[in-house]
Amino acid sequence: MENIQDEVFDAAVIGTGPAGISAAITLTVRNKKVLLLGSRSLSDKISKAHAVRNYPGLPEIAGNDFQKKMLEHLDVLGIPVTEDQITACYALGDTFSLTGRSSRTYTAKTVIIASGINFGKPFEGEEQFLGRGVSYCATCDAALYKNKTVAVVAQTEKEESEAAFLAENCAEVYYIPMYKKEDIHFESSKVKVIQDAVVSVSGGMKVQKLVLKNQELDVDGVFILRDSVKPSQLVPGIELDGNHIAVDRQCRTNLKGCFACGDITGAPYQYIKAAGEGNVAALSAVEYLK
Amino acid sequence: MENIQDEVFDAAVIGTGPAGISAAITLTVRNKKVLLLGSRSLSDKISKAHAVRNYPGLPEIAGNDFQKKMLEHLDVLGIPVTEDQITACYALGDTFSLTGRSSRTYTAKTVIIASGINFGKPFEGEEQFLGRGVSYCATCDAALYKNKTVAVVAQTEKEESEAAFLAENCAEVYYIPMYKKEDIHFESSKVKVIQDAVVSVSGGMKVQKLVLKNQELDVDGVFILRDSVKPSQLVPGIELDGNHIAVDRQCRTNLKGCFACGDITGAPYQYIKAAGEGNVAALSAVEYLK
Ligand SMILES: Cc1cc2nc3c(=O)[nH]c(=O)nc-3n(C[C@H](O)[C@H](O)[C@H](O)COP(=O)(O)OP(=O)(O)OC[C@H]3O[C@@H](n4cnc5c(N)ncnc54)[C@H](O)[C@@H]3O)c2cc1C
Ligand SMILES: Cc1cc2nc3c(=O)[nH]c(=O)nc-3n(C[C@H](O)[C@H](O)[C@H](O)COP(=O)(O)OP(=O)(O)OC[C@H]3O[C@@H](n4cnc5c(N)ncnc54)[C@H](O)[C@@H]3O)c2cc1C
Repeated sequence: MENIQDEVFDAAVIGTGPAGISAAITLTVRNKKVLLLGSRSLSDKISKAHAVRNYPGLPEIAGNDFQKKMLEHLDVLGIPVTEDQITACYALGDTFSLTGRSSRTYTAKTVIIASGINFGKPFEGEEQFLGRGVSYCATCDAALYKNKTVAVVAQTEKEESEAAFLAENCAEVYYIPMYKKEDIHFESSKVKVIQDAVVSVSGGMKVQKLVLKNQELDVDGVFILRDSVKPSQLVPGIELDGNHIAVDRQCRTNLKGCFACGDITGAPYQYIKAAGEGNVAALSAVEYLK
Repeated sequence: MENIQDEVFDAAVIGTGPAGISAAITLTVRNKKVLLLGSRSLSDKISKAHAVRNYPGLPEIAGNDFQKKMLEHLDVLGIPVTEDQITACYALGDTFSLTGRSSRTYTAKTVIIASGINFGKPFEGEEQFLGRGVSYCATCDAALYKNKTVAVVAQTEKEESEAAFLAENCAEVYYIPMYKKEDIHFESSKVKVIQDAVVSVSGGMKVQKLVLKNQELDVDGVFILRDSVKPSQLVPGIELDGNHIAVDRQCRTNLKGCFACGDITGAPYQYIKAAGEGNVAALSAVEYLK
């Protein structure tokens, strides 16, 4: 996994839903060197679907079979998934530099954003205290909270391992799951699971409290771990259209060499629309690479 | 087949490639009454593909298997294909009226154009003599050429039956195939097969000659039978962008209630792009129907 950081990819694709998978497939068929970033379990929106009725060619397919078909396609073309969540992506002129939660850094000539729309509305105080106690990345910022008290607000159960990792550094970790699960268990006694709803983040110069519906927690930091990062935060300078990334019919964004596809470009939120746009974004990247 | 002409469909979908199939599927899932117009053999561009590599979920699929999957999907959802080629589609205010080569007429509240880009460049003189000896529809115009001499310029072998039908009315039928096939045989001795390339249509007030590379034919009419009709001719008043139908990101055309998707809206010419746009056009039609 070390050398992946020294390579310059033709395209980095952020996200492993139908949009990102489709983009990676078309880029590979066009002989481009692709870095597909996301999860080998692909997208929850694929695997957790009941029966998908409107993806032409795969009638009435259940989510887990749909996931298998997509993984099979990646495997047939030899496209690996690099497990990482990208926290920032900067345009450096001829290339883009991407940093992940893994704290690895990647370089690519083009970027295709296919990150879906899982980000949700920010909590009150979240944006205000960003970088002053609010963090989106445990691996990146754990060292700042050595022997301190932090809260982890977690969108999915994947984040349990992040909380466990923080417990190795911090004095105390409050874990507030935003997902439904009866029995959440941690090895470390430093982690306390609190089933409550987040209201706001508050403090002075720095974060001091995480306010929940039924109690307030005194903390030095709050890790808000969602499946997706807001596009404006993921790619500084990107032009938005409401909550979505603004694109033209060729899936081009306002940033040269940066393309977007799938739910992140706006409604309709649909598999086949996302897959279609992945293909368009990939071919626009191929055109740009010429 | 008679009552189909008395129904008012929510949507008429013109074309049975990936774009039209996808539109019909999404409309059906959304409980709309759909008329899917084209061919039960779907699109030549599906069935004749070697191995398709970039339709996510169906890795390395051969054209005939791809065709089977698409037909299976239509069958699972109980979507029939109405075999017809639409020659004209008029906006009448609240509804659209469509006429086919079969000379049947259909009515629908919305229209989705998914006719692909098989029309090719018009021949010299073709547009000039349209309606003055040039025709695109044997069934519609055969009666005008009773006991006269006509030429049939045919893009695909499907048109052999059209020429045979004309022979029942006309004195003489020259058949000029634009496709490759060694042995083209007709029952009627009135049909003469001529293997040559079309240069132009010429005449005075009306058509008098079909000029081929190696000879000139004296004719009263020329039937030019292609798989697709030019969009400007298919839907009078539709706004074009070069050879394509101009659409926005929701696949809306300049005509209210009329949407377009797939190759006809422009490059890239790709299956998954076409299927994605079919879905978008269908959902825009659903929105419009509200
Ligand atoms: C319950 C449910 C049922 C649905 N049913 C249907 C249906 O029947 N038909 C239909 O057409 N659509 C349906 N949809 C919608 C469909 O799931 C979405 O439109 C589709 O998944 C969008 O694809 P996408 O690739 O744009 O995004 P997603 O599928 O959301 O994939 C984005 C992926 O990128 C990852 N990601 C995000 N940010 C980053 C980052 N910074 N770094 C790395 N990875 C990142 C995410 O974790 C996610 O896995 C349904 C959705 C839901 C929730
Ligand atoms: C040899 C070849 C190989 C290809 N390989 C690939 C590939 O590997 N990957 C890829 O993504 N793409 C490939 N393509 C492109 C792909 O075939 C097209 O982009 C795709 O088929 C477009 O879909 P569509 O639905 O817009 O149009 P089409 O598939 O062209 O379908 C339109 C249908 O509408 C019918 N029609 C037209 N006018 C009318 C009318 N007036 N009334 C009724 N019916 C009508 C036509 O007869 C046709 O069947 C290939 C194309 C060719 C020719």
